[in-house]
Amino acid sequence: MAATAQRIVLASRPAAEPAAENFRLEQVPVPAPGAGEILLRTLWLSLDPYMRGRMSDAPSYAAPVAIDGVMEGGTVSEVVASNNPDYKVGDIVLGRSGWQTHEVANGKGLRKLDPKAAPVSYALGILGMPGMTAYFGLKEIGKPQEGETLVVAAASGAVGSVVGQIAKIRGARVVGIAGGKEKGQFVTEELGFDACIDHRAPDFAERLKEACPKGIDVYFENVGGKVFETVFPLLNSFARVPVCGLIAQYNTIEGISETNWVPQLMRGILTKHMTVRGFIVSAFYPRFGEFAGEVVEWVKSSKLKYREDVIEGLENAPRGLIGLLRGENFGKRLVRVG
Amino acid sequence: MAATAQRIVLASRPAAEPAAENFRLEQVPVPAPGAGEILLRTLWLSLDPYMRGRMSDAPSYAAPVAIDGVMEGGTVSEVVASNNPDYKVGDIVLGRSGWQTHEVANGKGLRKLDPKAAPVSYALGILGMPGMTAYFGLKEIGKPQEGETLVVAAASGAVGSVVGQIAKIRGARVVGIAGGKEKGQFVTEELGFDACIDHRAPDFAERLKEACPKGIDVYFENVGGKVFETVFPLLNSFARVPVCGLIAQYNTIEGISETNWVPQLMRGILTKHMTVRGFIVSAFYPRFGEFAGEVVEWVKSSKLKYREDVIEGLENAPRGLIGLLRGENFGKRLVRVG
Repeated sequence: MAATAQRIVLASRPAAEPAAENFRLEQVPVPAPGAGEILLRTLWLSLDPYMRGRMSDAPSYAAPVAIDGVMEGGTVSEVVASNNPDYKVGDIVLGRSGWQTHEVANGKGLRKLDPKAAPVSYALGILGMPGMTAYFGLKEIGKPQEGETLVVAAASGAVGSVVGQIAKIRGARVVGIAGGKEKGQFVTEELGFDACIDHRAPDFAERLKEACPKGIDVYFENVGGKVFETVFPLLNSFARVPVCGLIAQYNTIEGISETNWVPQLMRGILTKHMTVRGFIVSAFYPRFGEFAGEVVEWVKSSKLKYREDVIEGLENAPRGLIGLLRGENFGKRLVRVG
Repeated sequence: MAATAQRIVLASRPAAEPAAENFRLEQVPVPAPGAGEILLRTLWLSLDPYMRGRMSDAPSYAAPVAIDGVMEGGTVSEVVASNNPDYKVGDIVLGRSGWQTHEVANGKGLRKLDPKAAPVSYALGILGMPGMTAYFGLKEIGKPQEGETLVVAAASGAVGSVVGQIAKIRGARVVGIAGGKEKGQFVTEELGFDACIDHRAPDFAERLKEACPKGIDVYFENVGGKVFETVFPLLNSFARVPVCGLIAQYNTIEGISETNWVPQLMRGILTKHMTVRGFIVSAFYPRFGEFAGEVVEWVKSSKLKYREDVIEGLENAPRGLIGLLRGENFGKRLVRVG
């Protein structure tokens, strides 16, 4: 088989915002599966904020991608050759092939997808990691109650959109934060949030306060930076802050207070009996069935709405990620690879 | 009855460290109990860090003491006159008479103490509010496990000393932080902590790190400020930080980083899956029986050791509180009033 595979490797580590030169597209022969192995051809590659962390060698919960290593990522793939009795050609699987068109795998750690149950790409979004982040962050930490107010940023994105819609199902008042008028309209009109505030507006803080007349009981933290500073004073007693991401801080931190307000932060946590808890969704992967049991039904019945933001072609994955980190995506961003 | 009572009122609100002129000692007639009422004579007045908060009118979880109002505080008192069938002269009760020698009460919200069970002053310390703070902060949030490392500051104080000893009972390695050699010796030799570090030492950070070779799993936060900055980088994945007080920040904050490290704090909480949770012990008062069931036995059997730091005379309560906020106390500070 003389066919050519493509892959994108990490060429260098970015100091702040990633740029095209941090990535390198390589052409390599399509690998051949050995005994017990299968050959996967990537259909969809997920782009997610955490990938910025993998490009850095700062200590984190996961090891960084090595220089010259293939960029990591969740993928939906088709089995195109199989020496493994558990898989047949044509099977669609969820895996972590990374930023490449082909991968040889031993079949472990893959999950077969049923194309009749839902679009297979959903396994990278609302029915996958981002959906589970929203679901378990709310179920285990945020716990929105009827009549409480929940705020979530990146409200039109993969996690924020699901957070807000589940909180609405739970009976909370839901206020989103998103950049620009178009996203705001989508969030309120399509997703049914009670309000959506533009974080770029000069009167952002005032408008957020107006939208939360009874304060904030749950702040689902996925952005950090300036938005966190604005939200914090509005948090109520016994507020819960699940922390799943800090996208506004991944490249560089702009627009935040110069004053060290850690003492005030801790004072707020104390005097308002707050809970601030970081979590990594993989800790909840063993509970996938519990998640799917509720969320698949909500998606089928359109109780949960979902929007994808598709980049065409693996070669465009770098600018797709760079744009995601700038908030350019409108919905769950993913790459149609093949 | 021409007898005179004494009381200390809040004369003015301190801007930073409280001073003698913020308090005023007043002589008033001993009040007479009406129908259904009792007259209490204060034996012991507890001095606690939260009192600094009540002197300020900054928003907090409890209303401030009014100017010219009697300073609040927990007390152990003797019933010296009674028009209430539930109390007889000579009964010893735990209440909140505040900084005064006498109070007329209706009997509600008091708890009778048995002088044979334990010294009655213990109800203001290890068998009372500070003990419950330690007990429930560990039980509900800190949850030290066998072999984990717990750090607590103000280690010879009313809360810290109990935190560390209970964590030892639970099988944790316990490192205290305290000011000065004498307190450090007491903490390790008397209370049985594994180590105690002097926060005034110029190499405090290095010594703390050395004392925690496997990092820190539970940091019981009662001081804030510089100590928190030093502890934070040492926290392990899945660390728990119960926040019950921030005594180092109540007057003024010195020696902390000028850089706004809130983004780094949030990043640590995220990437290490930490839980930072504030709590106010009064939320656990309904569970007093659960607390007493374990702690009374531990005190009786000397599994828990306890040291009191007694100030003589109500007129010395102001300097007792000022000193407490400076860390001058050595053990649970309280005032012998009568």
